[in-house]
Amino acid sequence: MRNLSLLGATGSIGRSTLDLVRRYPEEVRVVGLTAHQQVAALAAVVTEFRPAVAAIADPALLPELMERVGATATELVAGPAGLEQVATLPECDTVLAAIVGGAGLAPTLAAARAGKDVALANKEALVMAGDLFLAEMAAGGGRLIPVDSEHSAVYQCLQGCRAEDVRRIILTASGGPFHGHPEIDLTTVTRAQALAHPNWSMGEKISIDSATLMNKGLEVIEARHLFISDGAEATIEVVVHPESIVHSIVELRDGQMLAQLGRPDMRGPIAYALTGPRRVAGVTERLDLTATPLHFTAPDLDRFPCLRLGFAALAAGGSLPCVLNGANETAVAAFLANRLPFTAIPAVIETAMAACTCPPPATLDEILALDSWARARASEAVAKMR
Amino acid sequence: MRNLSLLGATGSIGRSTLDLVRRYPEEVRVVGLTAHQQVAALAAVVTEFRPAVAAIADPALLPELMERVGATATELVAGPAGLEQVATLPECDTVLAAIVGGAGLAPTLAAARAGKDVALANKEALVMAGDLFLAEMAAGGGRLIPVDSEHSAVYQCLQGCRAEDVRRIILTASGGPFHGHPEIDLTTVTRAQALAHPNWSMGEKISIDSATLMNKGLEVIEARHLFISDGAEATIEVVVHPESIVHSIVELRDGQMLAQLGRPDMRGPIAYALTGPRRVAGVTERLDLTATPLHFTAPDLDRFPCLRLGFAALAAGGSLPCVLNGANETAVAAFLANRLPFTAIPAVIETAMAACTCPPPATLDEILALDSWARARASEAVAKMR
Repeated sequence: MRNLSLLGATGSIGRSTLDLVRRYPEEVRVVGLTAHQQVAALAAVVTEFRPAVAAIADPALLPELMERVGATATELVAGPAGLEQVATLPECDTVLAAIVGGAGLAPTLAAARAGKDVALANKEALVMAGDLFLAEMAAGGGRLIPVDSEHSAVYQCLQGCRAEDVRRIILTASGGPFHGHPEIDLTTVTRAQALAHPNWSMGEKISIDSATLMNKGLEVIEARHLFISDGAEATIEVVVHPESIVHSIVELRDGQMLAQLGRPDMRGPIAYALTGPRRVAGVTERLDLTATPLHFTAPDLDRFPCLRLGFAALAAGGSLPCVLNGANETAVAAFLANRLPFTAIPAVIETAMAACTCPPPATLDEILALDSWARARASEAVAKMR
Repeated sequence: MRNLSLLGATGSIGRSTLDLVRRYPEEVRVVGLTAHQQVAALAAVVTEFRPAVAAIADPALLPELMERVGATATELVAGPAGLEQVATLPECDTVLAAIVGGAGLAPTLAAARAGKDVALANKEALVMAGDLFLAEMAAGGGRLIPVDSEHSAVYQCLQGCRAEDVRRIILTASGGPFHGHPEIDLTTVTRAQALAHPNWSMGEKISIDSATLMNKGLEVIEARHLFISDGAEATIEVVVHPESIVHSIVELRDGQMLAQLGRPDMRGPIAYALTGPRRVAGVTERLDLTATPLHFTAPDLDRFPCLRLGFAALAAGGSLPCVLNGANETAVAAFLANRLPFTAIPAVIETAMAACTCPPPATLDEILALDSWARARASEAVAKMR
């Protein structure tokens, strides 16, 4: 039985997690919940799951949350301190970090520091603050378990392997709605077109990241921190796999590969993160392998330069992964607000990365300052490109 | 360092194994070698590897072996007792059982009884004598490690899993030269056509088994003994995968799948059987996933009834797997000698299976008697069909 604090209860990952809690009450009990702004949805799940504490990120919404929840044993809190309280609850042993973007960094770090097992769906924590986060995890003593489908796949494949035998980690990418469709003019694609992911049902920000392939750019950095220790020779590659059946692949030094396959359903990796190495019955529907051939192609880095930027940040290390992430969040928000063309997203990010001469950030304050700097540079670039 | 006795040194698996011994002398030392009839080839590898003992199965060939080898510290022996001596050498810790067909059963059982680790490429040992063989392995205390590419794939996938979480084992089948080619008239296919396997370079007997899909029929029985304990709910299925890249797949109870991929090169599974869970560098060439899409189709049991017979023997248990195997060996030998049409192979086997009212064999003598009975019934059926 896991006692779970769920950071980001109202997003796509959070909803899938609560679906699992409903179906496997003997496996997981919810002790803490947070949401960013969706106060009605948070109130509903507080009433349903009766956690010890629930937090709304926006303090202005706390009165509404209290009113909606009514008389309850749940302590209702708000703001950064509230999120941190939920992430570090004494009765919690496991934190599922499913807040999207840089906003999830501080509470996820707090959970790591408090020694919680961290099921990590917030890839930005590792992209922005990989070294710091891993140091906090090691100091706290909790286990770090990936929830991203690709990283869960690698993690599952590696369970029976020795880390030193890994030669290559191959992250699969669906390619999003545009890769493999050269007939589509990317300069004119709309918000709705970019949000229409062919395989996965996800939130808006990650759907755009999937369309630009920046999602994979962030994931290669995440994979580096999760799976490759300093000095190891293993490489990380990306292959486009439009069917999203093979979730990722590990190549071992003898030339053999292990892969994890399944339907594109986040409940699979979430359940494994919560119960692994045990597996509970019937989490996802059976996959019919004969339904479709599986295709693999090299990613088109010319048409999707965001992935190239991700590899560049991975290779450079230091400040660049954090700048990449902050500038990307700003650029994606501008695209979603119809203030930036799709093809200008990588240009905005590259402008911020090129301007960066900052030393690598070492503390959370330095990381957040660098993130703010990157967002400011990106906003300036967006304004110039309008 | 493994001290290896290699049963079947001159066949396809034996040659691949010795290639690995040459390349990884720090991992494996050859202490025993056997061959069936290829005396010149055996003499050459005795001279090269200088094992403690070498055996030729046909005693009539022992003088020629002695003459070819000349002055040597290797003890040269012959016959069933000679094979058993090599399989149970005190200085040997690992026996790679690569004798094709039922001829490999007795020495492989002797190795099991002697407590050796058994790397099993001789699937007939489990098909003919599964319960007895597993009992001898358990009593001897050695490890049983599969070498068949499909079973090695399952074994590799299961390293990080709990046996009770397995829901389905999906063995992949290349389909051989004829599956997926409805334009080929199977009643007229020649020996040369049936031997022309599209992906794997193998011996003659297994190549024909691959063309009839009987190889997969034997493998489902092998997989049952290797991976599914009595009373477990897991099922075994076969999917045709013409590219022979995915070597097999395990479905776990949560719906997730693990698969092992690689080039079709037996040195991969052989090396893993000898060094696993460690992996040595560069055993097989890298696989380029983008070279071809991966296809999966249901096997055509109407056109390839041998696989249906394999599943029938698996379901019935008792005497039928042993009868299936013996009758198949006789039928394949008749086909290779141009004494039986390709499509009559399953008819011959089915005739022997239908005639069987024998109780399940419990001892090696009973198993060998049943095997002889099945071969006799199959020979009669071949004679009638000419």
